[in-house]
Amino acid sequence: MDERLTKQLAFALELDKEKSVFRRTHLSGPGRLENDAEHAWHMAIMAYLLREYADGEADIARVLIMCLIHDVVEIYAGDTYCYDAEGVKTQKAREEAAKEKIFALLPDDQRAELTAIFDEFEAGETLEARFAHAMDNMQPLLLINSNDGCDWKDNGISADKVYRRQGRTRLGSERLFEATDAILRENIRKGNLYWEDPEGKGNKDV
Amino acid sequence: MDERLTKQLAFALELDKEKSVFRRTHLSGPGRLENDAEHAWHMAIMAYLLREYADGEADIARVLIMCLIHDVVEIYAGDTYCYDAEGVKTQKAREEAAKEKIFALLPDDQRAELTAIFDEFEAGETLEARFAHAMDNMQPLLLINSNDGCDWKDNGISADKVYRRQGRTRLGSERLFEATDAILRENIRKGNLYWEDPEGKGNKDV
Repeated sequence: MDERLTKQLAFALELDKEKSVFRRTHLSGPGRLENDAEHAWHMAIMAYLLREYADGEADIARVLIMCLIHDVVEIYAGDTYCYDAEGVKTQKAREEAAKEKIFALLPDDQRAELTAIFDEFEAGETLEARFAHAMDNMQPLLLINSNDGCDWKDNGISADKVYRRQGRTRLGSERLFEATDAILRENIRKGNLYWEDPEGKGNKDV
Repeated sequence: MDERLTKQLAFALELDKEKSVFRRTHLSGPGRLENDAEHAWHMAIMAYLLREYADGEADIARVLIMCLIHDVVEIYAGDTYCYDAEGVKTQKAREEAAKEKIFALLPDDQRAELTAIFDEFEAGETLEARFAHAMDNMQPLLLINSNDGCDWKDNGISADKVYRRQGRTRLGSERLFEATDAILRENIRKGNLYWEDPEGKGNKDV
């Protein structure tokens, strides 16, 4: 086998490790915790299904591969819970090192190509990246909503925090943010989410 | 939320169940058994990485979504081990019923669209379907090879049977079948795979 294909298959095998990186979201049921590979698969299909709601004409192939690889650095850097303020401080440095390491397994042209797709997602500026981020938000939202907010309750996550994160969905799809907002309001109504300060800003913003 | 989006999100949530459908392939390590969602994620990324080897100019977005959804019927029909002769006899009927059931969750246009993509994969006639099948073969091959053939040994699978299945990779990519052949020969040499009849046809064909 030539060097190029050998490298491509070595990278492909390394990806297997992403199936052992667990997130803080439980499968519906509630079931066990979800892993990164499952999350990426799920959000990629959602991107395809919901592409009509992207605020513009997204290159769907680019959105799909972006969804599929957006967490590969966690193979070495681990999953950083988005509401873990301490972990988030070191996340960028850990993930940059991991990115160098994993994409170095590829032939040079594909290292550059996948690094660019990964960086585009992280920067969140293109329509494709914004829509992929919307899926990164909506996919766990569907699971948590189906479980009556257990992941928010177990981790003491407030509505304020959830809105700060889920608010980014609006950057990729106004329509899907409206749906997100409806789901969150329903969870607040049911007591699955609470405001840090019921009289405060969060409540008025929604 | 309008009826269309409500249906799309109901389908998206139902997909979660695919993470609980387990295959006969172990993760590298060897680790635990792999599930359908992980397998689909892995083969989709492989399709993107290895698309240069497709025997023709494949529509990569179509290959990706085909890889991602090709096993959704197993949510209701279960995984049928490709070397289980009895299970394979009833597979088609079970999966047809499951296909009707799951895609019925979608709005009509998307039910038709996803059914067509699923059927295209099953028919295996277009370049996209043939290349997706090549990935459906190569992805578990990488894992089993990394585990010194444990899944073949545990299930008493012969080289003859593996070649009959992996031979279909040639329909999507001659180059990737050459690589597959090299991997299988090495496994035969190491005693991880055996010929049913060492003097017989199988041996001469390879």
